[in-house]
Amino acid sequence: MKVNANYAKLANSYLFADISRRVADFQKANPAADIIRMGIGDVTLPLCPSVIGALRQAVDEMSVKETFRGYGPEQGYSFLREAIQGYYQERGVALELDEIFVGDGGKSDISNILDLFALDNTVAVPDPVYPVYADTNVMAGRKIIYMNADETNGFLPMPGPDMKADIFYLCSPNNPTGAAYDREQLKVWVDFAASQKALILYDAAYEIFIDRPEIPRSIFEIPGARDTAIEFCSFSKTAGFTGVRCGYTIVPKNLVYDELSLNKMWSRRQTTKFNGVSYISQKAAAAVFTPAGMLQIKETIAYYKENALVIARALDELGIVFFGGYCSPYIWLKCPRGMESWDFFDFLLRGAHIVGTPGGGFGVNGKYFFRLSAFNTRENTAAAMERLKKLLA
Amino acid sequence: MKVNANYAKLANSYLFADISRRVADFQKANPAADIIRMGIGDVTLPLCPSVIGALRQAVDEMSVKETFRGYGPEQGYSFLREAIQGYYQERGVALELDEIFVGDGGKSDISNILDLFALDNTVAVPDPVYPVYADTNVMAGRKIIYMNADETNGFLPMPGPDMKADIFYLCSPNNPTGAAYDREQLKVWVDFAASQKALILYDAAYEIFIDRPEIPRSIFEIPGARDTAIEFCSFSKTAGFTGVRCGYTIVPKNLVYDELSLNKMWSRRQTTKFNGVSYISQKAAAAVFTPAGMLQIKETIAYYKENALVIARALDELGIVFFGGYCSPYIWLKCPRGMESWDFFDFLLRGAHIVGTPGGGFGVNGKYFFRLSAFNTRENTAAAMERLKKLLA
Repeated sequence: MKVNANYAKLANSYLFADISRRVADFQKANPAADIIRMGIGDVTLPLCPSVIGALRQAVDEMSVKETFRGYGPEQGYSFLREAIQGYYQERGVALELDEIFVGDGGKSDISNILDLFALDNTVAVPDPVYPVYADTNVMAGRKIIYMNADETNGFLPMPGPDMKADIFYLCSPNNPTGAAYDREQLKVWVDFAASQKALILYDAAYEIFIDRPEIPRSIFEIPGARDTAIEFCSFSKTAGFTGVRCGYTIVPKNLVYDELSLNKMWSRRQTTKFNGVSYISQKAAAAVFTPAGMLQIKETIAYYKENALVIARALDELGIVFFGGYCSPYIWLKCPRGMESWDFFDFLLRGAHIVGTPGGGFGVNGKYFFRLSAFNTRENTAAAMERLKKLLA
Repeated sequence: MKVNANYAKLANSYLFADISRRVADFQKANPAADIIRMGIGDVTLPLCPSVIGALRQAVDEMSVKETFRGYGPEQGYSFLREAIQGYYQERGVALELDEIFVGDGGKSDISNILDLFALDNTVAVPDPVYPVYADTNVMAGRKIIYMNADETNGFLPMPGPDMKADIFYLCSPNNPTGAAYDREQLKVWVDFAASQKALILYDAAYEIFIDRPEIPRSIFEIPGARDTAIEFCSFSKTAGFTGVRCGYTIVPKNLVYDELSLNKMWSRRQTTKFNGVSYISQKAAAAVFTPAGMLQIKETIAYYKENALVIARALDELGIVFFGGYCSPYIWLKCPRGMESWDFFDFLLRGAHIVGTPGGGFGVNGKYFFRLSAFNTRENTAAAMERLKKLLA
């Protein structure tokens, strides 16, 4: 038996392990230090009452023979797909029901979709970015090119004549930079992909944070995107489902390459290799789209966004350049005093007992940048910013 | 962009669609007919009280900040892995905690594990069998050879000098034939795989139905299996989790090929492409292993097994040859009067208003065989057997 030798080419992923170790060492040497964690990429507020109500009802249904549910449709229950369809319809995006696939989270779908593509495609991945895009393609042995995201383009790479690839990853609002494409920029991307017969894999995991009309929440708000893009979304950040597991992927029927429909291929992939999402999680997800559910999750999102504003205001006061923070839970700041990101990490930890995420962990263009997240409490966020001001005074 | 052209080689999967169409046509023409469905591959009894209690508690935890859980470990929570470890320990199988990976079901894991293997491996798949083994390898472009399972070997293929493959799929108790390997047979397989430096993918989804000491419930009960096998199991059939989604996969650390550890590779695959199973589902799964939970699920399994006995007794009375039925929810019968499986399907539907599954749908060796399942109610099962006796009288 021969293993997939591409796995030997994977770079070891030490970022979060390194952070944990440095924090543990510091805490051991300074047991009294009250550390504030601003590196969190996970939600912290509990599920909203509408979701909890739906979970309880689903559990009750599973307890009696008459309403017990076994295997569900691999593509997701209609009740949830219809709710997602309605969510897009509100923004003027018309989707057919069988263009919507319910999955157990964005990470699974964005990884598993690669099954549909030939191994000799070249993929283009932004730098810096969420490491999953590159790692999953290394595992498959595909050629990867990097698109520079830096201060000169506001961390939003645009296509150019030199950019030769078959598959382009876009993540907007971006993790880790918080930068988000506007309508005009996305239109340029859609037209470029169409001209190259290329495919865009569009990660919209943070769309719920968008509140500016010039920033689209779905790539399908852009004319022509149905011919060139797949969109991934998740309830993880929308409704705090990181521990509940539910997401969805939109594969338009217009996507036909070599006479094969990507929609039909994905359906075949999912029915063959997947058995659907927990009925209980799907009922919970559907509750997000009820009027009460939507109000409740928007309150939670508003709380995180207010945290982001607290951070943004402090950085403005300090004259620190940053990206993101308005349509995103992430703030991507340029390390002060020309520090490199790991140096700034240590400086911040020792000087202010604050933990963040060094930009260098997300790519070469992150070397002088640093990610702060808005997923802590208001009190801790405000306290951290006061400490930061003192430290840099 | 070029698609994965292997998808064009997939045979269309019409089995269950064909069955549904024939049943619908018959019901339309005979609206008064009271059809009994003995083709069900899904459980029908609700979740047991211990599991329901755990689900309720987990939902409560998710509703308040203090006990809310976000992202969990991709490999599964320790509380569940420890419970699985204990379950194996009871049978004398010692596993390390990080050899146990919690996943969202057997189908996902048994499909996704293929990521770890080179594309130029040859896989050996029994015929007849669960179609996922072959389809997932067609998708990857691997060469597939078939191992004949038929009356001469009791539908339990054994290795032979002509069997050249790198990866061998074994499913015991088998779906669809219900046949199960005994200790001596599995030992032959383990030794053969070791001698060939081959890997066994062992599907133990139906292990809970085994109640004979000569039939192992895990391949790791066989000496040497840790050097040559990966085992897949699921709560779907064990505890009625087909709609809850939870399973587990055992990847021993002994499995090292080309200096790469399959255990480390699978851990890397799962941390990169998967975000763990719902916390709520994992709490429910852990409840299965409590003394009360284990008693309750065994009651449910006993109910299904008694149904299997009802079927087996009727077939014995009728002098119909069959396999399975004692350590399995499936009975695999030889169609009476030399009928082919689809002809027997129609004969049974028209003559006795019973729906089963034609063996031809599972492989060429199923052409003259038929699957009945024990997942219906006792009353329906008994009534169906009375009808069958009348039909064949």
